[in-house]
Amino acid sequence: MEDRFDIAIIGSGPAGLSAAINAKIRNKKIIVFGSRDLSNKLLKAPKINNYLGFYDISGVELKEKFKQHIDHLGIEITYERINNVYAMGDYFALMVNDKMYEATALVLATGMESSKLLKGEEEFLGKGVGYCATCDAPLYKGKVVTIIGYNREAEEEANYVNELAGKLYYIPMYRKDMKLDQNIEIVNDIPVEVVGEDHVQSLKTKKGELTTDAIFVLKDSISPAQLVPGLAIENEHIKVDRNMSTNLKGCFAAGDCVGRPYQYIKAAGEGLIAGQSAVAYVDSQKNK
Amino acid sequence: MEDRFDIAIIGSGPAGLSAAINAKIRNKKIIVFGSRDLSNKLLKAPKINNYLGFYDISGVELKEKFKQHIDHLGIEITYERINNVYAMGDYFALMVNDKMYEATALVLATGMESSKLLKGEEEFLGKGVGYCATCDAPLYKGKVVTIIGYNREAEEEANYVNELAGKLYYIPMYRKDMKLDQNIEIVNDIPVEVVGEDHVQSLKTKKGELTTDAIFVLKDSISPAQLVPGLAIENEHIKVDRNMSTNLKGCFAAGDCVGRPYQYIKAAGEGLIAGQSAVAYVDSQKNK
Ligand SMILES: Cc1cc2nc3c(=O)[nH]c(=O)nc-3n(C[C@H](O)[C@H](O)[C@H](O)COP(=O)(O)OP(=O)(O)OC[C@H]3O[C@@H](n4cnc5c(N)ncnc54)[C@H](O)[C@@H]3O)c2cc1C
Ligand SMILES: Cc1cc2nc3c(=O)[nH]c(=O)nc-3n(C[C@H](O)[C@H](O)[C@H](O)COP(=O)(O)OP(=O)(O)OC[C@H]3O[C@@H](n4cnc5c(N)ncnc54)[C@H](O)[C@@H]3O)c2cc1C
Repeated sequence: MEDRFDIAIIGSGPAGLSAAINAKIRNKKIIVFGSRDLSNKLLKAPKINNYLGFYDISGVELKEKFKQHIDHLGIEITYERINNVYAMGDYFALMVNDKMYEATALVLATGMESSKLLKGEEEFLGKGVGYCATCDAPLYKGKVVTIIGYNREAEEEANYVNELAGKLYYIPMYRKDMKLDQNIEIVNDIPVEVVGEDHVQSLKTKKGELTTDAIFVLKDSISPAQLVPGLAIENEHIKVDRNMSTNLKGCFAAGDCVGRPYQYIKAAGEGLIAGQSAVAYVDSQKNK
Repeated sequence: MEDRFDIAIIGSGPAGLSAAINAKIRNKKIIVFGSRDLSNKLLKAPKINNYLGFYDISGVELKEKFKQHIDHLGIEITYERINNVYAMGDYFALMVNDKMYEATALVLATGMESSKLLKGEEEFLGKGVGYCATCDAPLYKGKVVTIIGYNREAEEEANYVNELAGKLYYIPMYRKDMKLDQNIEIVNDIPVEVVGEDHVQSLKTKKGELTTDAIFVLKDSISPAQLVPGLAIENEHIKVDRNMSTNLKGCFAAGDCVGRPYQYIKAAGEGLIAGQSAVAYVDSQKNK
C-alpha cells in the first residue's frame, strides 16, 4: 500500500522520540503521534540531574534539546490521539476518530497515567463511563455527553462527538486556550464522583452536579490493553522481552508503559531498542 | 567496615557513569573504576546522531559532556583495572594487583571486547596465555613474560609483574607515552600467533618471534565470567533480569556487557536501572 507507513510510533515522550530518531536514521517511513508539548511529564520537571550528559537542566530546556534533535532529522509530530489499534496480521490499523492510519510495525511509547480514578469511575466503566469518546459516540446520538479533557488533543475528540451528541459538556483539566465548537458548554469545575444506578446518571463536581448520559475521561494515555486489544500485560505494564517485543508480532513498546523505574533515560534507552527492533522487523517483512 | 564502599562500579563508559550519577544523587558512597578517557569507544566515534538530546556530536564532545556531568556531582574515576571480583556473601572483594577494595553492591559496566583473538590464543588459554597478569604472576617468577597491552592501565600491571618476572616484554597496542619500569623491553610490533606444544613457547609477531613462558593479553575488558567467578552468562553476555540483577545477590550489570544493541543511550538507560537497583539493595542491607 502506497500510504502505509513502515513504523508508527505512539507517544512523543523520550521513549517515542528515541525510537523515532533511530528508525528515521535507518531511512524508514515513520509517523509519530503525540502532543504539542512532546510530553507533559517533561514540561513539568523542575530540575533534572540524572540524564547522562545534561546536568541541572529543566524539563522545558530538555524538551527543547529533544525538539532540536528531531527537527534536525526532519521528524514531525502528528498531534493526534490514537483511540484504538488493531493488529491485522501483516500491518496495524491505527484509529483516530474517523481517520485510519496503517503501519507495518508499531512502537507503543504511551507513558503511564498516574492520575487517580474518580469515585465511581471504575464501577461505571462500560456503563456510561468510557475512555474513547469517538469510539462510543454513536451510542449517545442526541444524548447528553460530558467530556473530562486532560489535554488539547481531547478538544478534537470533543468537537467530533459534538456532531452526534445532543448536548456536550467539556470540563478542561488544564489551563490553555480551547478550540471548541461554539455550542459545547465549557464547565470550569472539578469532577468528583460518577453517580448512577445501572448506568451513569450524573457527574458530581466540586461546585455542583451535571445530569449526563455518558462521561468520557480523556487523559494523556489510556491503558495499553484498551488501546491495543490482545496486548499482553503484566503487573499493569506492557509485557516485553529484551528486544522490547510485545506478544503481538511487529508490535514493540518502550518507556514508562513497560515498567519501572519511570525515568527519562531509561525510556530513551528502551526507545532506541524498540526503534531498532521495529526497523529489523520491517526489513524482515520486506525481504519475505 | 569503615572503608567499605556502598557501591563499586566497574567501567566508566555511559553505562557505568549513568549508574554512578544515579547512585551519587542518592547519597551513596561509591567508587568508579575506569580509564582516563572514560571509554575508548566514546573517543573513537566520529559522529553520533542517535543519543536523544545531542545531534551530530563527536565522541570526544559527548565524552566532555559526560565528564562535566560527573564533575558537577563530584564523582571521580579511579584509574585502576579490576582483575578479579569475589562475592563474599554480604560484600564484594575487588582485586587490583596487590590492592583490595570492598563494596556492599557491585555494578558491572565493563563493555564488550570486540578485538579478534590471536591465532592460538584460545588453544593456549590457561597454558601460558592469560588475561590477568597480576593474578598469575607468581607462576612465572624468574621467567620470561610477554604482555600485550591495549591501554595505559596495562602498564601498571606490567610494572607489577616486572617485579617478579625474570624478563618482561611489553607490546603496546596503542600510541601514547608509556610509563614503564626501565628494564621492561618495549616491543613495537604486532602479535600474530601463539606457539607451543603443551604450553606456550613463543609469540610470533609480524616482524619476528619472541621466546616467552607466558603471554598476557590485557584488553579494555576481560570476559565477565573471568572477572567475577560464578557469574551467569547467556550467549556471551551477562544474564540480567529487567532490574539489571545478575544471578549473584547484590551484583548488577548494564551496557554492552549485558547484550545488544551496542549503543550509548541503551547503555546509559540500563546504567540508571542498575544504579538505582544497587541503591535499593544497599538500603535493604542497611535496614536488616
Ligand atoms: C514532575 C515530574 C518530574 C520528573 N522528574 C524526573 C527526573 O528528574 N528524572 C527522570 O529521569 N524522570 C523524571 N520524571 C519521570 C519522566 O517524566 C518519565 O519517566 C518519562 O517522561 C517517561 O517517558 P515516556 O516516553 O515513557 O512517556 P511520557 O513522557 O509520559 O510520554 C508519553 C507520550 O505519549 C503520548 N500518548 C499517550 N497515549 C497516546 C495516544 N493514544 N495517542 C497519541 N499520543 C499518546 C502522551 O501524550 C505523551 O506525549 C518526572 C516526572 C514528573 C511527572
Ligand atoms: C567507532 C565506534 C563508533 C560508535 N558509534 C556509536 C554511535 O554513533 N551511537 C551509539 O549509540 N553507539 C556507538 N558505538 C557503540 C558504543 O560505543 C557502545 O555501545 C558503548 O560505549 C557501550 O557503553 P558501555 O558503558 O557498556 O561500555 P564501554 O563504553 O565499552 O565502557 C566500558 C568501560 O569499562 C572499562 N573496564 C572494562 N573492564 C574493566 C576492569 N576490569 N576494570 C576497570 N575498568 C574496566 C573500560 O576501560 C571502559 O572504560 C560506537 C562504537 C565504536 C567502537
